[in-house]
Amino acid sequence: MSFKLGDRLEFSCEITDEMIQKFAEVSGDFNPVHMDEEYAKTTRFGRRIAHGMISAALISRALARGLGVGVYLGQTLKFQQPIFPGDTVTIHLHVTAIRESRGIASVETIVKNQNGEVCVKGDATILKSEFLGKKKEAAESV
Amino acid sequence: MSFKLGDRLEFSCEITDEMIQKFAEVSGDFNPVHMDEEYAKTTRFGRRIAHGMISAALISRALARGLGVGVYLGQTLKFQQPIFPGDTVTIHLHVTAIRESRGIASVETIVKNQNGEVCVKGDATILKSEFLGKKKEAAESV
Repeated sequence: MSFKLGDRLEFSCEITDEMIQKFAEVSGDFNPVHMDEEYAKTTRFGRRIAHGMISAALISRALARGLGVGVYLGQTLKFQQPIFPGDTVTIHLHVTAIRESRGIASVETIVKNQNGEVCVKGDATILKSEFLGKKKEAAESV
Repeated sequence: MSFKLGDRLEFSCEITDEMIQKFAEVSGDFNPVHMDEEYAKTTRFGRRIAHGMISAALISRALARGLGVGVYLGQTLKFQQPIFPGDTVTIHLHVTAIRESRGIASVETIVKNQNGEVCVKGDATILKSEFLGKKKEAAESV
């Protein structure tokens, strides 16, 4: 699997309570704005919201499964709108630049909710999987 | 709980196989470089590595539990060294700027392994929890 400049990909997913619970267990982030409906009612959101980093996890999934990305080099994230339990989000990827000689690409990463509102925007920098072979020079990746 | 300019906080955590498995389930990211020891041996890493976004999840935990952050507005991440199952990482937070009138702060976020190597570096932008009350102006947060 590979990709080229200008490629676009979409992937949709429901944000379930089970995902929020599991993400809290992995991260240890039990912030009541995510976990406690009564507390969440007192906030500006009026109800529980999903952890912002769940979107980041879904972006990493879309990159790995959709584009066959080898390794993540970087990511920027701007959280613009909350995502609520039960929302269906769509991850939009767009390959905006590739340095072919080094296998490094920039991918615009946007997460929208079911109303088309942009919830998270940012950019990923990634290493194509063909470049993941055994090389012992500077490890520059995760 | 609150914090002020210049505050620093550290939090250490072992990266377990259970975390990698759970993160794969939440995200759907079963990239073999994380899950398949035989495949991982053929890569430059020589063994399985943790998902980069597990570090992001731990940063979000440290912000929420350590600084009592209300809401995440943004995060940048540069993945510089891989993190392996069994590594013990330390999340280092440093409050580098605060706009007190709006409750918005910048926090340097660095993740080091047990050898003191920087694995992930970046910056978080966050809203202090005191500013999380019911306000119906522009929702600018997650």
